[in-house]
Amino acid sequence: MKNYADVKQINYEGPKSKEPFAFKYYNPEEVIHGKKMKDQLRFALSYWHTINASGTDMFGGDTMDKTFGLSGMEMYKKKADFAFELMKKLGIKFYCFHDVDVAPVGKTMEETVKNFHEMVDYLLMKQKGTDIHPLWVTVNMFSDKVFMAGAATSPNAEVFARSCLKVKNGLDAAKKLGAEGYVFWGGREGYDTLLNTDMGLEVDNLGRFMQMAADYKKKIGFKGALYIEPKPKEPTKHQYDFDVATCCNFLRKYGLEKEFKMNIEANHATLAGHTFQHEIRVAATNGVFGSIDSNQGDLFLGWDTDQFPTNAYDTTLAMYEILMAGGFTTGGLNFDAKARRQSNTFEDILLAYIAGMDTFALGLRKAQQIIDDGRLPEFVKERYQSYASGFGKEIVDGKISFEELAAHALKTDEIKVDSGHQEYLESVLNQILFEDK
Amino acid sequence: MKNYADVKQINYEGPKSKEPFAFKYYNPEEVIHGKKMKDQLRFALSYWHTINASGTDMFGGDTMDKTFGLSGMEMYKKKADFAFELMKKLGIKFYCFHDVDVAPVGKTMEETVKNFHEMVDYLLMKQKGTDIHPLWVTVNMFSDKVFMAGAATSPNAEVFARSCLKVKNGLDAAKKLGAEGYVFWGGREGYDTLLNTDMGLEVDNLGRFMQMAADYKKKIGFKGALYIEPKPKEPTKHQYDFDVATCCNFLRKYGLEKEFKMNIEANHATLAGHTFQHEIRVAATNGVFGSIDSNQGDLFLGWDTDQFPTNAYDTTLAMYEILMAGGFTTGGLNFDAKARRQSNTFEDILLAYIAGMDTFALGLRKAQQIIDDGRLPEFVKERYQSYASGFGKEIVDGKISFEELAAHALKTDEIKVDSGHQEYLESVLNQILFEDK
Amino acid sequence: MKNYADVKQINYEGPKSKEPFAFKYYNPEEVIHGKKMKDQLRFALSYWHTINASGTDMFGGDTMDKTFGLSGMEMYKKKADFAFELMKKLGIKFYCFHDVDVAPVGKTMEETVKNFHEMVDYLLMKQKGTDIHPLWVTVNMFSDKVFMAGAATSPNAEVFARSCLKVKNGLDAAKKLGAEGYVFWGGREGYDTLLNTDMGLEVDNLGRFMQMAADYKKKIGFKGALYIEPKPKEPTKHQYDFDVATCCNFLRKYGLEKEFKMNIEANHATLAGHTFQHEIRVAATNGVFGSIDSNQGDLFLGWDTDQFPTNAYDTTLAMYEILMAGGFTTGGLNFDAKARRQSNTFEDILLAYIAGMDTFALGLRKAQQIIDDGRLPEFVKERYQSYASGFGKEIVDGKISFEELAAHALKTDEIKVDSGHQEYLESVLNQILFEDK
Amino acid sequence: MKNYADVKQINYEGPKSKEPFAFKYYNPEEVIHGKKMKDQLRFALSYWHTINASGTDMFGGDTMDKTFGLSGMEMYKKKADFAFELMKKLGIKFYCFHDVDVAPVGKTMEETVKNFHEMVDYLLMKQKGTDIHPLWVTVNMFSDKVFMAGAATSPNAEVFARSCLKVKNGLDAAKKLGAEGYVFWGGREGYDTLLNTDMGLEVDNLGRFMQMAADYKKKIGFKGALYIEPKPKEPTKHQYDFDVATCCNFLRKYGLEKEFKMNIEANHATLAGHTFQHEIRVAATNGVFGSIDSNQGDLFLGWDTDQFPTNAYDTTLAMYEILMAGGFTTGGLNFDAKARRQSNTFEDILLAYIAGMDTFALGLRKAQQIIDDGRLPEFVKERYQSYASGFGKEIVDGKISFEELAAHALKTDEIKVDSGHQEYLESVLNQILFEDK
Repeated sequence: MKNYADVKQINYEGPKSKEPFAFKYYNPEEVIHGKKMKDQLRFALSYWHTINASGTDMFGGDTMDKTFGLSGMEMYKKKADFAFELMKKLGIKFYCFHDVDVAPVGKTMEETVKNFHEMVDYLLMKQKGTDIHPLWVTVNMFSDKVFMAGAATSPNAEVFARSCLKVKNGLDAAKKLGAEGYVFWGGREGYDTLLNTDMGLEVDNLGRFMQMAADYKKKIGFKGALYIEPKPKEPTKHQYDFDVATCCNFLRKYGLEKEFKMNIEANHATLAGHTFQHEIRVAATNGVFGSIDSNQGDLFLGWDTDQFPTNAYDTTLAMYEILMAGGFTTGGLNFDAKARRQSNTFEDILLAYIAGMDTFALGLRKAQQIIDDGRLPEFVKERYQSYASGFGKEIVDGKISFEELAAHALKTDEIKVDSGHQEYLESVLNQILFEDK
Repeated sequence: MKNYADVKQINYEGPKSKEPFAFKYYNPEEVIHGKKMKDQLRFALSYWHTINASGTDMFGGDTMDKTFGLSGMEMYKKKADFAFELMKKLGIKFYCFHDVDVAPVGKTMEETVKNFHEMVDYLLMKQKGTDIHPLWVTVNMFSDKVFMAGAATSPNAEVFARSCLKVKNGLDAAKKLGAEGYVFWGGREGYDTLLNTDMGLEVDNLGRFMQMAADYKKKIGFKGALYIEPKPKEPTKHQYDFDVATCCNFLRKYGLEKEFKMNIEANHATLAGHTFQHEIRVAATNGVFGSIDSNQGDLFLGWDTDQFPTNAYDTTLAMYEILMAGGFTTGGLNFDAKARRQSNTFEDILLAYIAGMDTFALGLRKAQQIIDDGRLPEFVKERYQSYASGFGKEIVDGKISFEELAAHALKTDEIKVDSGHQEYLESVLNQILFEDK
Repeated sequence: MKNYADVKQINYEGPKSKEPFAFKYYNPEEVIHGKKMKDQLRFALSYWHTINASGTDMFGGDTMDKTFGLSGMEMYKKKADFAFELMKKLGIKFYCFHDVDVAPVGKTMEETVKNFHEMVDYLLMKQKGTDIHPLWVTVNMFSDKVFMAGAATSPNAEVFARSCLKVKNGLDAAKKLGAEGYVFWGGREGYDTLLNTDMGLEVDNLGRFMQMAADYKKKIGFKGALYIEPKPKEPTKHQYDFDVATCCNFLRKYGLEKEFKMNIEANHATLAGHTFQHEIRVAATNGVFGSIDSNQGDLFLGWDTDQFPTNAYDTTLAMYEILMAGGFTTGGLNFDAKARRQSNTFEDILLAYIAGMDTFALGLRKAQQIIDDGRLPEFVKERYQSYASGFGKEIVDGKISFEELAAHALKTDEIKVDSGHQEYLESVLNQILFEDK
Repeated sequence: MKNYADVKQINYEGPKSKEPFAFKYYNPEEVIHGKKMKDQLRFALSYWHTINASGTDMFGGDTMDKTFGLSGMEMYKKKADFAFELMKKLGIKFYCFHDVDVAPVGKTMEETVKNFHEMVDYLLMKQKGTDIHPLWVTVNMFSDKVFMAGAATSPNAEVFARSCLKVKNGLDAAKKLGAEGYVFWGGREGYDTLLNTDMGLEVDNLGRFMQMAADYKKKIGFKGALYIEPKPKEPTKHQYDFDVATCCNFLRKYGLEKEFKMNIEANHATLAGHTFQHEIRVAATNGVFGSIDSNQGDLFLGWDTDQFPTNAYDTTLAMYEILMAGGFTTGGLNFDAKARRQSNTFEDILLAYIAGMDTFALGLRKAQQIIDDGRLPEFVKERYQSYASGFGKEIVDGKISFEELAAHALKTDEIKVDSGHQEYLESVLNQILFEDK
């Protein structure tokens, strides 16, 4: 296997290549479903996992060194250089970051803010002459101890204020860097025990905060999308943004449903007891589908493993949902994924991205084949025919009453409900996935 | 141990009694938190588990015979007699039932409806001279094969119509019997696989159906409450009424948030990944707290075990939430619980109800002690003091801007977030639970 | 789509066929890994799900009628005819059944036994002139109320005795029908609450029972294998045969490790927190790999869903483990799977079996491709090279002491542990699964 | 509330005291079940959580500073002083530690070992004149990156050798300090993916390693017990010491069942799908009950939360199992528990220990009341009466054959299996827990 340094560019070599450092399914310029693959998939690099994470887990320390022997601003600039080098090797056009991923925390808030803006300028400089820019920006309001009891939902109003400062800087940076969006992940917006929690006040405060942020976005003329990223639990026992439906209720309750969309993470979906596809479908039917945090969890494990996505069933069904929802506009596929702790080399970073990008590219190809094949979508259409005419259509159109329907039913003793043919549909899916093309 | 027949009435004998057929904590006429215990707790008997269920599970047949050697209408009348006898022995004033619990299905829809109304009249006759009446009525739209793919969300419009007929009869019965409410549990309103499901149409249809039902309720002048009972899964892979937050989103989306409240089941809460208390709190903060299906699940098991509630931590914290939410108005504590399959005697029915009623009575007593003790509620109040004055209050009152807060934060380097003292609060709770009173 | 009656035989038509009633991957006579596919896969029909189950679940009644309008012995003979017809249509050579699946329960034990032996003779007659015979036989010691508290672990010695009678008849039938094995699934051998359970006595009794059964098997000269089928929970809260490792401990504790092998069910593995492959590997490393109950669960659901296996990752990795363990000898792939409740037609029975057989046939093909490709097995071999020579080999051979190793380590400051390359290996697996062949 | 420094000693003040820094249930010198409470409960302090952990989680940094502004050996000595001070304040006589908890890692292995032994001598000096000594010692073979793929199960033989060195030092320290035992927790002895794992070799190597360690223990004359601590998962996807039954199978397979006992952690039990009581019972019935890692998990969360135990149901039932198993000999109750991340003060350390110690003390009191009350143990005894005489006794004594039992059963049509009375037993338990004493 080659060394990281010897890999200059990951190229598409097709499904038969045995070269580890080549794409087998991701062919960026190939057109699928009316767009180039790179424009359908809109892959993004996650700064925190890829540029910073070092293999730590709750029971073990670093397995990799990504400091380049440096520290302070010097280290962060070197990291930015590395990020752009990596994106170029991988042919990735988007990146995502938290404020603390790209710049060192200072001794005072003013120094911290100054460091951040200096690094934002550095990133802007790096962007010049490339087509690379942020898919979205966010700020970290969960790691520092001041956020231990929440950010906008903290019992301490000073923390609420600091959250305003952080998000203000994040939105300013998003605007400056031409980001496509801005994400809110409320990792500490929840509780550890109801014994010490005023849920009503906390969620009301969160509503106030989100309204303020949405107003500020408009004020500065940032055109990108605002996203909420649902997650049910971890780090807190219970987070207010549990899943898409819960976030939709929050948005409607506080009149924010026009201002925010969802950034859906596969692993967060599964921790909430839903499939990834379910969450995308719920977002689409509520008009809030936005972007994807692309990864996979392990359904045998109860925490956020943030693995690179390599299950082609999941990526196919997710891409099918995304295409059905109209594809990405502002959003994309951010790899909120980290190489396993034992994948402790720079080569593994490339191999992990290749695995993830190829599996989603394969998913896109297979999603298109589902559409072309037609058996699955046509089965669904056919199944609901009774609502396309007759009294079924009157139900949909609101032209028939409860009593009329009840009277009709009183005279209808036999109803034949057709088979859902689940096993057949699963075998059709398998055939599409595994037949030659 | 006595025989069932020899137990004439379950009386309160206090916490030291070793008589199995006596209450140790439930003293109906004793006043707690301003009301008699019987009026705070509003216990209800569940017809399906108590009068009909025979110990079947997915791997085994009956362990009890509750047919009294009869069949048809005769059997159902005998069952009604038994239900009233049981309620009198237990001192229970409310009951809950599905249409199919109280009357036999006929050969035609008309016969089925006729049987049902005949039995409703019989129940009305039984109610006369007692203070017993339904806490709520519901209809079963999940057992018959016509509902295999849903009721209001069925792909077959004939099933939608039959659902109208069923709910119409249910609401008519609720009115006639003076029920305090009517419940919708959507056990088949969901899907088994997204491969064959049009979620958008299905949920829209459910919205239309609920609007129709709410309108009909008003038309007939039924004054009781309408409830939705959330459950995430089982029997279907995924149900649309996943949890309280999901139901609130549904209600708001279709403009129904004034028409429905929640009937929260403990075991359904836990299957959704929430504590029982969490769901009550979420309902309260969304203004939809209604009634309780009182039972407990087994957190080591992944299905709805519907056990009688015997965990005093859970009942204490639930009753504390309920008292904080203002207590029951139309709602109450329905024992949606069945004696274990091995509890195969009529004595066990009594013993199981005693266990459940006593545990909730103990919970009520302890909830009141939490209030009287004061340490827990005062800790919470104190914890959020920073929002009661200064700029914290301005946040709550909407009198301070994002930029003003950010500017303040830029000058605030040190923030001390106080300990949440979780372990201390848990030990206070234990002391209240276990100290002598 | 054709009707059930019009489908005479399911034939192999290859991966491009769009005929629902044809195999796309299962080509019975094709040789893979040195044997015909039919001899590698040894598919078996499960009598209970396929011939008897009617779509019931805990919240709903029948969706299918498999009684043929008959009852009693007549119905059971018709069912046997149906079973053999189905096996012939599907080209399946093995079947599996419980005593109660094939014959009606009588009014007395003697009548029950007589019915059973009469039906065993009928099955023997049906086998004549075919190459069909049981993969294994078992008896149902969990459905009848007498088993509510266990069979060999019942607190009631009469139930222990009845269990002897049942297993004796089952072993006698297995011998008469030329079964390849006999299975013990201890669905009620566990407890619902430790409050009423003497675990020590119960497990000792189970040990005594298994020894008796093993002795009886030898006495009558039954040459088939004896299997234990692990399952962690459901119907009981906790079953003694939790998983493969637990069963191995049981066998070793009672000196039975030579007498029993494992019948591993995919869905039981996952309910115990293990992957299917894990359980096969554990059985193989403990020398007790036997047979497979082929199905799949839903990892989002907490109960035994017994779905037909349609996930090709799982079947590929399972078949790879099975081939590595030497393939089946007495065992095979019994479809302990039922068509979904909504798959309510006789066509669905065929479609479900086709889905399952094809997915396992695809898995076998892909497992062979893993071997042929070589990258995965060679990576593993290479990874453990340090134990193939030097002091690593001395460790394996027991030729070096603790102190010598400690002394060596004291002088060894730097150790480089190589990357586990998980993402790369997963992408290799994907390439093997999805590349053209 | 007092400051940490102002709390000199935690004293027993009884259940009515409202002093936060006092025991309500733990009265060390009071005799329960024939021994002083301190000798029944044998509480131990865990060095890693209590002396070192700083509130970090996977999403956040420190919330507490326990460095005392020091570093290197100086800091570790100050930490040791703090540990002894804390044990004295709490009246705790035992402590538990890993090698890396008590001494800094050096630049070379030799320096690391030297540091460790120097600190062991320091601890020995601290022990002088006190009755404090280790409940058990262990070594950390999971945090350093060399252990990323396992210790004794690493694919790299150098890591096996280093594991020998570490355990050798740990056993030497245990002997020197007069520890009551030595624990093996195999946090990395497992795998992340079977794709790169030779499970057979790895588990065989673990067997070799454990044999070597047991031999070395005897050689140096260490008289303490050896324990394995089961845990199913986390940090690895799957650990070989999954649960008690799995460990027993391992011990029997490698002939080690006389050499090792179990150190059972409550939170590990629950992560494996078992109750805490189940694991104690399984250990007792397999003759390997040893010691307890006392904590509690959150059944709604899928990771090891290591909370201080505050659920009195669990501690009562655990203490009942422990008393039934004969009580502790070498083992005890080590608080493998950390104050919540938001419990960020030194006062919280005391409050958390008080909560845990009081809840176990309450559990001990209630366990004794269960015995004194008699209703629960007598019910169990009565339930199995059929094995105490007649043919039931012949089954237990091995004096009746399979065929004799089958013949008996053939003549026995009616069997009445008695009710398990679960709800009644649960209400008896509640009465014992909540009645006045």
